[in-house]
Amino acid sequence: MAGARRPGRNFLFVPGPTNVPERILRAMHVPMEDHRSPDFPKLTLPLYEGMKKSSRPRTGQVFIFPSSGTGAWEATLTNTRSPGDKMLASRFGQFSHLWIDLARRHGLEVIVQEEEWGTGASPERIEEALRADKNHDIKGVMVVHNETATGVTSDIAAVRRAIDAAGHPALLYVDGVSSIASIDFRMDEWGVDLAITGSQKGLMLPAGLGIACVSEKAMAQTKDATCRRAYFDFADHMRTNPGGYFPYTPALPLLYGLRESLAVLSEEGLENVFARHRYLANGTRAAVKAWGLELCAKDPKWYSDTVSAIMVPEGFNGADVIDRAYRRYNLALGAGLSQMAGKLFRIGHLGDLNELMLLGAIAGAEMSMRDVGIEVEPGSGLAAAQEYFRGAQGAGEARLAAE
Amino acid sequence: MAGARRPGRNFLFVPGPTNVPERILRAMHVPMEDHRSPDFPKLTLPLYEGMKKSSRPRTGQVFIFPSSGTGAWEATLTNTRSPGDKMLASRFGQFSHLWIDLARRHGLEVIVQEEEWGTGASPERIEEALRADKNHDIKGVMVVHNETATGVTSDIAAVRRAIDAAGHPALLYVDGVSSIASIDFRMDEWGVDLAITGSQKGLMLPAGLGIACVSEKAMAQTKDATCRRAYFDFADHMRTNPGGYFPYTPALPLLYGLRESLAVLSEEGLENVFARHRYLANGTRAAVKAWGLELCAKDPKWYSDTVSAIMVPEGFNGADVIDRAYRRYNLALGAGLSQMAGKLFRIGHLGDLNELMLLGAIAGAEMSMRDVGIEVEPGSGLAAAQEYFRGAQGAGEARLAAE
Amino acid sequence: MAGARRPGRNFLFVPGPTNVPERILRAMHVPMEDHRSPDFPKLTLPLYEGMKKSSRPRTGQVFIFPSSGTGAWEATLTNTRSPGDKMLASRFGQFSHLWIDLARRHGLEVIVQEEEWGTGASPERIEEALRADKNHDIKGVMVVHNETATGVTSDIAAVRRAIDAAGHPALLYVDGVSSIASIDFRMDEWGVDLAITGSQKGLMLPAGLGIACVSEKAMAQTKDATCRRAYFDFADHMRTNPGGYFPYTPALPLLYGLRESLAVLSEEGLENVFARHRYLANGTRAAVKAWGLELCAKDPKWYSDTVSAIMVPEGFNGADVIDRAYRRYNLALGAGLSQMAGKLFRIGHLGDLNELMLLGAIAGAEMSMRDVGIEVEPGSGLAAAQEYFRGAQGAGEARLAAE
Amino acid sequence: MAGARRPGRNFLFVPGPTNVPERILRAMHVPMEDHRSPDFPKLTLPLYEGMKKSSRPRTGQVFIFPSSGTGAWEATLTNTRSPGDKMLASRFGQFSHLWIDLARRHGLEVIVQEEEWGTGASPERIEEALRADKNHDIKGVMVVHNETATGVTSDIAAVRRAIDAAGHPALLYVDGVSSIASIDFRMDEWGVDLAITGSQKGLMLPAGLGIACVSEKAMAQTKDATCRRAYFDFADHMRTNPGGYFPYTPALPLLYGLRESLAVLSEEGLENVFARHRYLANGTRAAVKAWGLELCAKDPKWYSDTVSAIMVPEGFNGADVIDRAYRRYNLALGAGLSQMAGKLFRIGHLGDLNELMLLGAIAGAEMSMRDVGIEVEPGSGLAAAQEYFRGAQGAGEARLAAE
Repeated sequence: MAGARRPGRNFLFVPGPTNVPERILRAMHVPMEDHRSPDFPKLTLPLYEGMKKSSRPRTGQVFIFPSSGTGAWEATLTNTRSPGDKMLASRFGQFSHLWIDLARRHGLEVIVQEEEWGTGASPERIEEALRADKNHDIKGVMVVHNETATGVTSDIAAVRRAIDAAGHPALLYVDGVSSIASIDFRMDEWGVDLAITGSQKGLMLPAGLGIACVSEKAMAQTKDATCRRAYFDFADHMRTNPGGYFPYTPALPLLYGLRESLAVLSEEGLENVFARHRYLANGTRAAVKAWGLELCAKDPKWYSDTVSAIMVPEGFNGADVIDRAYRRYNLALGAGLSQMAGKLFRIGHLGDLNELMLLGAIAGAEMSMRDVGIEVEPGSGLAAAQEYFRGAQGAGEARLAAE
Repeated sequence: MAGARRPGRNFLFVPGPTNVPERILRAMHVPMEDHRSPDFPKLTLPLYEGMKKSSRPRTGQVFIFPSSGTGAWEATLTNTRSPGDKMLASRFGQFSHLWIDLARRHGLEVIVQEEEWGTGASPERIEEALRADKNHDIKGVMVVHNETATGVTSDIAAVRRAIDAAGHPALLYVDGVSSIASIDFRMDEWGVDLAITGSQKGLMLPAGLGIACVSEKAMAQTKDATCRRAYFDFADHMRTNPGGYFPYTPALPLLYGLRESLAVLSEEGLENVFARHRYLANGTRAAVKAWGLELCAKDPKWYSDTVSAIMVPEGFNGADVIDRAYRRYNLALGAGLSQMAGKLFRIGHLGDLNELMLLGAIAGAEMSMRDVGIEVEPGSGLAAAQEYFRGAQGAGEARLAAE
Repeated sequence: MAGARRPGRNFLFVPGPTNVPERILRAMHVPMEDHRSPDFPKLTLPLYEGMKKSSRPRTGQVFIFPSSGTGAWEATLTNTRSPGDKMLASRFGQFSHLWIDLARRHGLEVIVQEEEWGTGASPERIEEALRADKNHDIKGVMVVHNETATGVTSDIAAVRRAIDAAGHPALLYVDGVSSIASIDFRMDEWGVDLAITGSQKGLMLPAGLGIACVSEKAMAQTKDATCRRAYFDFADHMRTNPGGYFPYTPALPLLYGLRESLAVLSEEGLENVFARHRYLANGTRAAVKAWGLELCAKDPKWYSDTVSAIMVPEGFNGADVIDRAYRRYNLALGAGLSQMAGKLFRIGHLGDLNELMLLGAIAGAEMSMRDVGIEVEPGSGLAAAQEYFRGAQGAGEARLAAE
Repeated sequence: MAGARRPGRNFLFVPGPTNVPERILRAMHVPMEDHRSPDFPKLTLPLYEGMKKSSRPRTGQVFIFPSSGTGAWEATLTNTRSPGDKMLASRFGQFSHLWIDLARRHGLEVIVQEEEWGTGASPERIEEALRADKNHDIKGVMVVHNETATGVTSDIAAVRRAIDAAGHPALLYVDGVSSIASIDFRMDEWGVDLAITGSQKGLMLPAGLGIACVSEKAMAQTKDATCRRAYFDFADHMRTNPGGYFPYTPALPLLYGLRESLAVLSEEGLENVFARHRYLANGTRAAVKAWGLELCAKDPKWYSDTVSAIMVPEGFNGADVIDRAYRRYNLALGAGLSQMAGKLFRIGHLGDLNELMLLGAIAGAEMSMRDVGIEVEPGSGLAAAQEYFRGAQGAGEARLAAE
């Protein structure tokens, strides 16, 4: 911890970075080595294959940048687009907002479809806009799969159907930062052309790797893209990656970490990871209901299995809950951002997590709310989550049955 | 974890080994070095001073063995006693039993005072026995300060007063394995002659160091002690320790760990550590009361602040609760030992621990009990502990106030 | 190591990444935490101060990006320049070449002064070019301080004097990747406007941090710079850094590593670090001379104290030496790049290094050369380096004297 | 390092503790866990099997104590012998001396055969003594396989033949601390009854595990052995080990380390480990010869492949060389002990070691000798070792060929 040490563990429930399993921390504790040695590709080449298994493209390219996920956003846009290109984007939270902003800084003209925060992308409105774009000026549709700021998951398959229904050639750009390796994501089946993620969510690593998955169709557009790029240029990677090398010195510990992370995911099984996230999400939602509070997500169809944004009652400030939780109970909750500032607090329930960790966090949220005057019943959220976990054929039970 | 990896952290609530703080794990991650180098004493000499601060002898010697705490038991007895020597010992749990057994294996004649399990040493009976020992045949009184098997703390100061009241010269031997650096312990003030501990409890280290604190009075008896000894012989240490060396190759990572552990304890402050353990113990006891269950400890005066042994209702087996907790919820609870087998389960609440970790464990115990049919109210223990923590001027609140 | 494990340590003598001290590896072994917590600035704010001490600007700004050093190149150019801007750059090795290439990709017009590989930037030619630029079309002068590809250090102070002598307002852009925290570098005194480095050289960290130091004069030009930028935009950092935060999730372990690295550098003392690098370089050069070989650097005034590029005799391929060293002796040497491919091999002598490590590498180079048929005298380079080290008032001796 | 940090790595060439491979250090960086959990035996049970592969008993028992190797000495004697038992022991170095001393402290009567330091056990004299012992009063023969103090390996198979030739039932007790997992050792084939080792030599772990391998014949004698024992009593282990548990809290990180160590040894192959140690020993001996110095070992048949004790010329003090090496060159050499004090210095060449590490140490020894006035030719030892390594079909070459 950055500050003075406190006894016991910090309960980290911001929706990223997530908890890094001990075995991944160990795997990253490595001496440096020559990244141009003949042995180096034995480390790197399997990483591309492993990422393909996680994000599920059968074809196309994976690029791994020493950057945050934001860098991967930049990479996908600058490598495939030219200044002045039109993009269609849904905005319904802070991260969809920031991605649009980044696109504009690179000279793209973004047509924004505003959606109420707490909902997600509207396939109907997307189809409508694309149908209206007779000249096919719109070059890409940008959707944040899982909006971390509001706890909302959009239906990417439906967006693809909308694009196809409109008979429009626009590429589908998807921010999968808090969805890839966390919830169901199907690059090929959903016809996603460019998907990005960062290392610090479902991959259970520190931030520092920005990862882009690019379809063959999207790769074909890179040669005509005139957005300026160098650090994030796919071309340098295309020259060096196939041999197992990088155009510049890679962030070695994170590559070792990624290898271990992919092994961890593979051992648990991606489907089991998704099921566990849903199970933990359901427990969280049971607690919220027992507290008599509302989620930011307006409808169950928007519920995110990786993060729950919980509205505080009128007259209270979510930031007070968060501050109390951090200072008094060593619990890190996510804050409300932008137009949600003060209105909610967020519990991330993804990554290396189990029931008791989550119950500890629910206990901390419960005490913090009471401390700032929100009159939830003591133990009520806990009891509801406990009884859900006990009854559910959840991750733990499934594992037991398998033994 | 030894077994197949499970998502999320194991909740370790056996009363030892305790959780090792990350910074101590880091401190132990060291390359080997020459334990006879001129620099080596810079590491070792401060450890003796530090241990004296933790166990509070102002005088006497500290010995650090590469062994478990059991080895320190052996060291204190074989270095000060001769075969056939009479010892007086109270037995009220598995660890007091094992220590007596060890003494007998080394040829000592142990007069055992049986006390009901759930109570502790009786100063009255000890005084009585010593008064009756007109010839002063009894050479030592052996007391386990904190009986980890039953969650009982004995009153060592009262035992000293009993010895003094009887005008008896017997040495006072104290097992401080789960008390030193965990609860109040005063070597000099209480007239303890030999005290031992292990690294895996309040010192928050892995097992592997057996530590003995020996008064000057006890040191004076080593020259006449004829119990066979070599590995645990104080004499070899007396020859090498003052210069900062050991008679054989030391367990280096644990020495670095001990240095960090002493720093951690010093930063928090021993008194604050004791207060935190009491605060966490009170929260646990509030939960037990809310469940309608009983502690093994018969009376508040015996309550241990480092471990609570919780009786399961008639007709249930504590082992089932423990098994369920481990397999289903990744929670390690302590078992009932010997005559308490099956009758209880134990929650350790010492070491690197805070409220939310403990609430996670209480939640797990609650669910496990319900799973095996013990009808505690869902959330009841949690709510009681939460409200205690919120109201108490506990560790968290005190820290906040100090900021 | 990426490949199958071999007994013993790899001798890493590529000139970067350099060896990461154990204590820095330990410092990076941390759980994740909330990068928006009130404690977080306690970690981050001192890093900027620390970097200023290492690179020696008294004023201006330091920016820390989750990227390689290449990203910092991009950041300095895109934040201060507009497409079409003219830059003057010296090219005398692979890294000066790559920087020029990156500038051109961002639309800058780079006037290249070719210098013989093995020499460095020519202050005379720079002054001449600037004097000829009557309209002050040239906006910046780009110099690689230490050209890692050829083992050549340029005289930055002289370049500044040349700019001033020409009375030209061009900014001075310096690549300090293998100079900052490695050899003498004086941001303010030399009037450097933008300097960059990466974490994997003198800072003794894994790659993954790109660091830019920016003078106030350069900061003033950012508002008019129209190069497209988002990920590397200083503006987002200016909004968040002063409070101790980042515009996106930072690479946490590297920040902890940087804190430890700055402590390590401060404990040794920057001047002592520079002196040690010179001492190790002198030992290396003594070995090269004893072998009867030549450095790539044409003249002692170009000699780099962080890397020596050693020409193999006519008829031999440097790549064979490197391959043999790696496969047979577990020694990683640097390769000849671009027009130097096959003509040389490189020994990095910077970072966490001492005499015996270097002698091991010299021994390995000696054996590898002999194995591929280069007839150096066995032990000759070693004896020369040994005798130099013994005679020199080098780092070791100075430390001894100081004790 | 215990002292102030110095740049670069310490060269650790005391003959133990040896260098711990990074991957073993990583494997030991583990959170604590319940050592009575149902998963725990998955960790522990394979350790016994693995140790049997390393020390090569097909039958009998392996015991793992939380202690140094000295503790294992004590365990083998006290579990199989009674006070007053006669033992026959060869003494030819500090470690054979200390073992004899330990036996005597436990009441055994040790008949000592003094051998010149620099030689080893004499099968002829042992046979003679046993033949003379008509009543079979001698219960055991104690031999240190590899005397670390003098760099001498005794011929254990010949000792067994001597015992058998005498038709004597005495058990064969062997100290294999610096031989097991380091040089050829054959428990069953050589008829060794009790063999011990420590974790800090060929097992490449920190000290802290004392390991005893006990034949069935020796196990049969434990029930009649009356030496006092408790901590080291085999009986407690016999009750708990078969289930995968221990009689007291084990030193968890070392168990994980041992698992990794056994994997490392198995991957390289024990025979290859022995061959590598011989190859490194030969290189060291080539250097000694080139220096014009003598080994303490009187004859090639005594040469140890794990440690070389090098006599300094008349008029010089080995301690000065060692002191200089440590302070000036960060090289840890072994000292002369007892009657060899000042007469020699030792280079350990076992464990996780390769050619360049050893050449670094030889370079350091060479410089240190010259610094204190011993006039060895600069580079002479290095050149001899280098040329040996280049010519030998050594470990490196064999590995290359196998690729």
